[in-house]
Amino acid sequence: MTIRMYDLAGADPNRRFSPYCWRIRMALAHKRLVVETIPWRYCDKPAIAHSGQDRVPVIEDGDRVIADSWAIANYLEDAYPDRPSLFGGAAGRAAARFINSWADTVQNGGISTFVALDIVGHLDPRDQDYFRQSRAQRFGMTLEQFCANREARIGAFHRTLEPLRVTLKSQPFLGGDAPLYPDYIVFGGFQWARTISDFVLIEKDDPIAAWRDRMLDLFDGLARKNPAY
Amino acid sequence: MTIRMYDLAGADPNRRFSPYCWRIRMALAHKRLVVETIPWRYCDKPAIAHSGQDRVPVIEDGDRVIADSWAIANYLEDAYPDRPSLFGGAAGRAAARFINSWADTVQNGGISTFVALDIVGHLDPRDQDYFRQSRAQRFGMTLEQFCANREARIGAFHRTLEPLRVTLKSQPFLGGDAPLYPDYIVFGGFQWARTISDFVLIEKDDPIAAWRDRMLDLFDGLARKNPAY
Repeated sequence: MTIRMYDLAGADPNRRFSPYCWRIRMALAHKRLVVETIPWRYCDKPAIAHSGQDRVPVIEDGDRVIADSWAIANYLEDAYPDRPSLFGGAAGRAAARFINSWADTVQNGGISTFVALDIVGHLDPRDQDYFRQSRAQRFGMTLEQFCANREARIGAFHRTLEPLRVTLKSQPFLGGDAPLYPDYIVFGGFQWARTISDFVLIEKDDPIAAWRDRMLDLFDGLARKNPAY
Repeated sequence: MTIRMYDLAGADPNRRFSPYCWRIRMALAHKRLVVETIPWRYCDKPAIAHSGQDRVPVIEDGDRVIADSWAIANYLEDAYPDRPSLFGGAAGRAAARFINSWADTVQNGGISTFVALDIVGHLDPRDQDYFRQSRAQRFGMTLEQFCANREARIGAFHRTLEPLRVTLKSQPFLGGDAPLYPDYIVFGGFQWARTISDFVLIEKDDPIAAWRDRMLDLFDGLARKNPAY
């Protein structure tokens, strides 16, 4: 049965830009599960009310409705044990929880300070006021202020990626020789950035850039085909 | 055969305080391997010259000599596959590499700014000048300057631990239901701090403190028995 997934989209319905939705798009492809994605905007909150919360990704698998990327990845792993594993066992799943937390806070928190303003230009017009107001409230300042002085701050951001860089110097993927869910977790953040901003987050000679290229090649270039810079 | 391990010690030979040595002490106990530890000071570099480098931990297992905590953990896992696993499989090992990098840079780099000066008071007199001079060169300032204003900086350090905190709110150990090498990696940093400094790094109501207590209880209180604050 085809899984349905509500996937954050811009004014261009093909521009899918949520880092958390990208984690699940890649995880579904890894599991070789067929998915029908439904472009979703912030103003479409009623469409996912049956999930009991108001954020995407949300998936529907038969009569199961699951929200939250970490919960969805765990659901997919447990519901489809005969498909390629996302975690590679209990220890891999437990350690992935740490990488998930790191990506949510350090990586995506950092990236947002560089690209959040660029999101506005890609949003459906109905979403623009909501996005500006909700983020101003969250950040305690305007998006312009939040994303100011990017060039002066990028070096500090690069240093926060050191654990990722060191790891990718010694192995091709966070999953080891092949990608696993930790790769999709972290890739989601960089895919988010490249879909909505031309700001150069990662230098070409950074080992992270070579890994990101490998990620873009996966699944017949699934992520590369998305509108991006 | 008993494994021998060169283990950084203070003026009191029982005060073992290296975060990297503690990773391996815990890993050896996890593998139920008998170890004879050899108290080692910075001035004892000739004693480990046969390892081809000048830092501890170094282990000798028969005629094998291995340096570097990550290399030692991997050696133990591969040389003793019938003992309890440190990584829980290839995916767990790959993800542990990320946690190792995070601990080396973010966690231990952070902790050093709070406790490095306190190390001096516990060092063997022969080590004190070496330690002060080598650290002044590394940090580009005196230890007093490096460790100044601890109370003003502790909040920022607590925030860098958020990935650890979030993970430990959802599972008892980084390894999941039971400790694995990622727990020993991160515990090593906190054990380092408590063996040489009375500065309160973690608040009592932090989930990290409860996990640290569980770690101190392991292996009949192996880490708790070490001289500490």
